[in-house]
Amino acid sequence: MGNGRLYLVPAPLDFGCNTQAPLDDVIPRGTLVVAARLQHWVCENAKTTRAYLKRVNALQPLSSELQALHIQELPREVHKKGDHQPHSFDAKPLLAAALATNGGHDIGLVSEAGMPAVADPGSSVVRAAHELGLTVVPLVGPVSLLLALAASGLNGQNFAFVGYLPQEGDARTARIRELESLALKTGQAQLFIETPYRNAQLLQALVQTLQANTRLAVSSGLTLATAATCSQGVKAWKQNLNAAGAPNNSTPAVFAIGR
Amino acid sequence: MGNGRLYLVPAPLDFGCNTQAPLDDVIPRGTLVVAARLQHWVCENAKTTRAYLKRVNALQPLSSELQALHIQELPREVHKKGDHQPHSFDAKPLLAAALATNGGHDIGLVSEAGMPAVADPGSSVVRAAHELGLTVVPLVGPVSLLLALAASGLNGQNFAFVGYLPQEGDARTARIRELESLALKTGQAQLFIETPYRNAQLLQALVQTLQANTRLAVSSGLTLATAATCSQGVKAWKQNLNAAGAPNNSTPAVFAIGR
Repeated sequence: MGNGRLYLVPAPLDFGCNTQAPLDDVIPRGTLVVAARLQHWVCENAKTTRAYLKRVNALQPLSSELQALHIQELPREVHKKGDHQPHSFDAKPLLAAALATNGGHDIGLVSEAGMPAVADPGSSVVRAAHELGLTVVPLVGPVSLLLALAASGLNGQNFAFVGYLPQEGDARTARIRELESLALKTGQAQLFIETPYRNAQLLQALVQTLQANTRLAVSSGLTLATAATCSQGVKAWKQNLNAAGAPNNSTPAVFAIGR
Repeated sequence: MGNGRLYLVPAPLDFGCNTQAPLDDVIPRGTLVVAARLQHWVCENAKTTRAYLKRVNALQPLSSELQALHIQELPREVHKKGDHQPHSFDAKPLLAAALATNGGHDIGLVSEAGMPAVADPGSSVVRAAHELGLTVVPLVGPVSLLLALAASGLNGQNFAFVGYLPQEGDARTARIRELESLALKTGQAQLFIETPYRNAQLLQALVQTLQANTRLAVSSGLTLATAATCSQGVKAWKQNLNAAGAPNNSTPAVFAIGR
């Protein structure tokens, strides 16, 4: 009897949105089949994990009652501080079920939206799985960063995702200039995100700070019926800050700049 | 009658592999439905596009005979030189069908594997679509880079994809050192790829060049039955260059380094 595997299970991108994407628009059948079978989960939030699995159940019946599943949450410190501080948190105990001596259980790792461990907590659990010698299997599903990059027309052969920009005005301006300079000099597209309620504020700061010929792409509500991507030079953005694709303050957005 | 849309249609990751992934393991129903409906395509290679659509047809019947589809190839210079040389190629004529005056047609953009315009040609077509005012809709499917990043346990909150490394020995060593220094200093994980027949050679160069404590992750055959990810320190790689997850020379692999 071998160890269980760690499956990385993507979730839809409609977390916190007013509308939902039909689940089979964005999650392949292969991923649904695995998710329906798993009885052990590690997640950011048990409540939203149950809500997701309820949607899975409507397309692919779960192998156990929702209430019978073993669902463990990542500690709150990981939510706040990010999940890539070496030695800050030992995730191995969360994977104990995979090591059960009479045959380990497969475990699913899931985040609130998109791919776990990408722009979201979870990487500490993946590193722990490798240290324990567990097989790690990433499953296919929506990843907002990559959908946004493809839809931007920016350089898909050289790009970086840098997370959140500073909130404070001067530090944010300096960081925008630094990323623009890198993008223009090296050709590496720079992607970043913001908490939805600050989307409009960030867009304004970008348009005020970036050079007229820099390309700025903004994707919002990706995979939803209202999804939109606007990709154009800053000069054009200045003429119409309310372009289709300009993010509102309640929908997740991805920002990208490049030449 | 409005203009047509440009749909970015992901393809499975088994191009050129000995085995195929079941299509519904990796492509959501929503993507299959759109792909089956589109009659106009822009692609890298018409033959492999027809082979892909034949697989789609087995799950979701196409709206027209395969031979009746309008399939245009990107020019060969784009394949060779990459697709992000500004002004090197005007892709607008490829999108003419979307502008037909009596109501434009929707157009699909597809590459050999994964997401078009990400680590693959296509971004010139996306930029042309934005210039023409067409709506660009990225559809969900497999993206090897992001599957590999999630499975690596490396930093998913700050990462870069830098394409191919130089082939020549000294230049490759220098580039590996440069990327490692960046990854260790900034915490930004660095991802790159190689033509499959050079995978083993690149792995050897990485293990010889990187510092003992740097983490090196290699994913190969992602989404296939033989998929494997090995993520460990260089010291451990040195003890076992043939670890599960070590790439062979016929399967696509993604390499990632970080701390």
